[in-house]
Amino acid sequence: TMADNTKDTKEDIKAPKPAANLQIKTPKGTRDWHGPDMLLREQLFQTVSDVFKRHGGTPLDTPVFELREILAGKYGEDSKLIYDLQDQGGELCSLRYDLTVPFARWLAMTSTQQVKRYHIAKVYRRDQPAIARGRMREFHQCDFDIAGVYDPMIPDAEILRIIVEVFDALKLGITIKLNHRKILDGLFAVAGVPAEKIRTISSAVDKLDKMPWADVKKEMVEEKGLPEEVADKIGVYVQNAGNITDIINYIKADADLPTNDDIKAGIHDMELLAAYLDALEVTDKVSFDLSLARGLDYYTGLIFEVINKPEPVADGDKKKKSKKDDPASQVGSIAAGGRYDNLVGMYGKKQIPCVGISFGIDRIFTILKARGENDIKKREVDVFVMAFGGGKDFDGLLVERMKIARQLWNAGIRAEYMAKAKPKLQAQFKAAEGTPLGVILGEEELKAGQVRLKKLDQGQGQKDEGNLVPIDDLADEVKKLLL
Amino acid sequence: TMADNTKDTKEDIKAPKPAANLQIKTPKGTRDWHGPDMLLREQLFQTVSDVFKRHGGTPLDTPVFELREILAGKYGEDSKLIYDLQDQGGELCSLRYDLTVPFARWLAMTSTQQVKRYHIAKVYRRDQPAIARGRMREFHQCDFDIAGVYDPMIPDAEILRIIVEVFDALKLGITIKLNHRKILDGLFAVAGVPAEKIRTISSAVDKLDKMPWADVKKEMVEEKGLPEEVADKIGVYVQNAGNITDIINYIKADADLPTNDDIKAGIHDMELLAAYLDALEVTDKVSFDLSLARGLDYYTGLIFEVINKPEPVADGDKKKKSKKDDPASQVGSIAAGGRYDNLVGMYGKKQIPCVGISFGIDRIFTILKARGENDIKKREVDVFVMAFGGGKDFDGLLVERMKIARQLWNAGIRAEYMAKAKPKLQAQFKAAEGTPLGVILGEEELKAGQVRLKKLDQGQGQKDEGNLVPIDDLADEVKKLLL
Repeated sequence: TMADNTKDTKEDIKAPKPAANLQIKTPKGTRDWHGPDMLLREQLFQTVSDVFKRHGGTPLDTPVFELREILAGKYGEDSKLIYDLQDQGGELCSLRYDLTVPFARWLAMTSTQQVKRYHIAKVYRRDQPAIARGRMREFHQCDFDIAGVYDPMIPDAEILRIIVEVFDALKLGITIKLNHRKILDGLFAVAGVPAEKIRTISSAVDKLDKMPWADVKKEMVEEKGLPEEVADKIGVYVQNAGNITDIINYIKADADLPTNDDIKAGIHDMELLAAYLDALEVTDKVSFDLSLARGLDYYTGLIFEVINKPEPVADGDKKKKSKKDDPASQVGSIAAGGRYDNLVGMYGKKQIPCVGISFGIDRIFTILKARGENDIKKREVDVFVMAFGGGKDFDGLLVERMKIARQLWNAGIRAEYMAKAKPKLQAQFKAAEGTPLGVILGEEELKAGQVRLKKLDQGQGQKDEGNLVPIDDLADEVKKLLL
Repeated sequence: TMADNTKDTKEDIKAPKPAANLQIKTPKGTRDWHGPDMLLREQLFQTVSDVFKRHGGTPLDTPVFELREILAGKYGEDSKLIYDLQDQGGELCSLRYDLTVPFARWLAMTSTQQVKRYHIAKVYRRDQPAIARGRMREFHQCDFDIAGVYDPMIPDAEILRIIVEVFDALKLGITIKLNHRKILDGLFAVAGVPAEKIRTISSAVDKLDKMPWADVKKEMVEEKGLPEEVADKIGVYVQNAGNITDIINYIKADADLPTNDDIKAGIHDMELLAAYLDALEVTDKVSFDLSLARGLDYYTGLIFEVINKPEPVADGDKKKKSKKDDPASQVGSIAAGGRYDNLVGMYGKKQIPCVGISFGIDRIFTILKARGENDIKKREVDVFVMAFGGGKDFDGLLVERMKIARQLWNAGIRAEYMAKAKPKLQAQFKAAEGTPLGVILGEEELKAGQVRLKKLDQGQGQKDEGNLVPIDDLADEVKKLLL
């Protein structure tokens, strides 16, 4: 076994051969990032953090693991998915499950009263991976949260605006499904759900986007012991979705709902929100959906979930893809969040209300990649420094190529040369592929203090000999050509 | 106990009160990053990755944990510092200990033959933390490695050049200590160390920068069973350090050393390197130091370690700090690396020689911070949108402030407003502190389709009323003022 491998290091040192059955791979549900995928991911992070900064966001970074007690009791039924570190003496720790709880822990231990913070980092869940749908065990979250006491619904509206700006920048069509925990709780109470069952019934309702109503009802009645008529009443309420004003009117028109205090408070919030979303031009992207529940326990007010809505396909279009092939329809929600006013208070006396959004970067990545956006060719180097020469005495001019590259690096120019003492010219041109400029050194030219500077990206091969440039002017000439 | 906390989630849900003895902190040896520290860290990452890109580097990102077997037998005596994940069923995993082994694993499982890759990420070591010296359990490494078969010492020289460029960009004086594993091994062999003791004696020599020779000798003789006369012979050799040519000449002039095949091969490498470092203008930063051993087992050729060398203090300067107060003298090496030609081959048949450098970002951060470089004030928002008005009927113009902010966001401008329905003007000016521009809304002006645009950073308070600007031109006018 490997359990005691830290004790017999000396044997390991003497046995550098790989174990016969050693699998060379990343752990299940994890992956490496390199090449076009990595470039697309970096671009995605850049786009999102630009939006965050536009709204006054400041970055926070927290450790990848937290004290186990910090995470305890925050994730309801999902707690079983938390990765624990082995007890090797000292504190018991677990890998972070999201970025929200670490943020709340940070708020609780600092003097911060108000902050807009963003955090782009990996989180960990021991879930069954589903690579095609972008569901991994190690994946990225990209969070923006507004913490502090403000007038009602103003920060909530800004969070929704941020969602719209991010997906506009990514050119992804979306619908933001909205609901309010108070309305949902009030609705369960009016339907007859006992107080102690509200969270577990809420979890069941949350599955409605993955399961038909009949299955959800079965879970409520058979597993969770809800009377059938209560479940049926819930079933009627939660099938309502539409624009905010319509759903507010539906609730107000109901015989029972408007009398509940939670619902009254929730409706007041939603009326304020409707006005703010109009001002921020967000209204046409939202759907007030009474079936939206969100699994996590810590939400207390507005909750939301973003789904990708591909552009409608024209009627005449014969190339319709089946829904099964479309990653957008497979990935589920691509961002989600809500208001959590009590989470920070769970760590002590200080209570700081918060509202925030978490973007599922890996799912968004999956959609963008399916759209072909990782085909970006990014120029990695500006100049390739080559030697030209023939005959027995040609020494490859390695030291001279190094000196020219050094000069370019000093000027901030990205430059490479072939790591070979006597390279063939053909091999150097091949190594330079994709590089826009070449600098070609020859013994005669060097004696005259000159090199050849040549554009490489025009498919002219070696016929165009480029221009002779004094070595002292080379960096400036290169910069001119790169503009 | 917390061990079974995943099983009783329902009780956790019903008990949102914090445990009486719950400590709100990050785990030992870890920290949060926010504010000026975070901005300095981001700047540092940017500087380093700019240099890496200038040399044709491409980014790689790997999972934070690896299969435990991938890490086994790579770190010698330091293996005990590896963090293991708890066995929760499935694969046994450990947190990465460095970025080199994950890179080698990636090379072994892909078809890559040649690559310059960089990786900036956190690594994990269950070591005793020493915060003042920048030694943490979770800390950053920042690696650049060149993998592939090339002519000897050309990539090695480029790595040393990259070290110089990074520290030049950070304005940190350095010395790069160099040695060669083959020369060191040959030297041990000539001194009379049996082959099977060479690695463990090498580990002892590696401690010479932290311990006096007498203690190292004691470890060799008493703990590791080396005859005293062999230890003494080693002691004579390893006290030599100086410029490359001088140390080459010292070795060549020795009666015994030049006959050893390993030493011959190492000297050949060092002679090539000396010529290349001259061409790359690196020579005056390096010291060939025969006492440098490097603890890790996987090095096979050139090894190096970078120490911060503060600028010499002028004789007349009375303000000399004691060495104890100077973080530069406390942090130890701030970058280290070397050639490891056999590591990739440990994972299978494919052998890819590599050479690389790892920057200790947290130690470098500690030095820069002590120099006051986290005092950077970074403008986080460009414009603060405010409402001005009095009287009973003043409604705070919240929706109007939102509309103006929306317009600025649409133009890519960073804007905020106060999240209060009816804010006082004073409070808004206070909230706007540090923001260069203010947009002030008044009912009369809005009726005329105008707002006031005002510079806020000139200490003129509210006296300067700013200029009236048509709302439609606002974004353009703001952009002009931000230039």
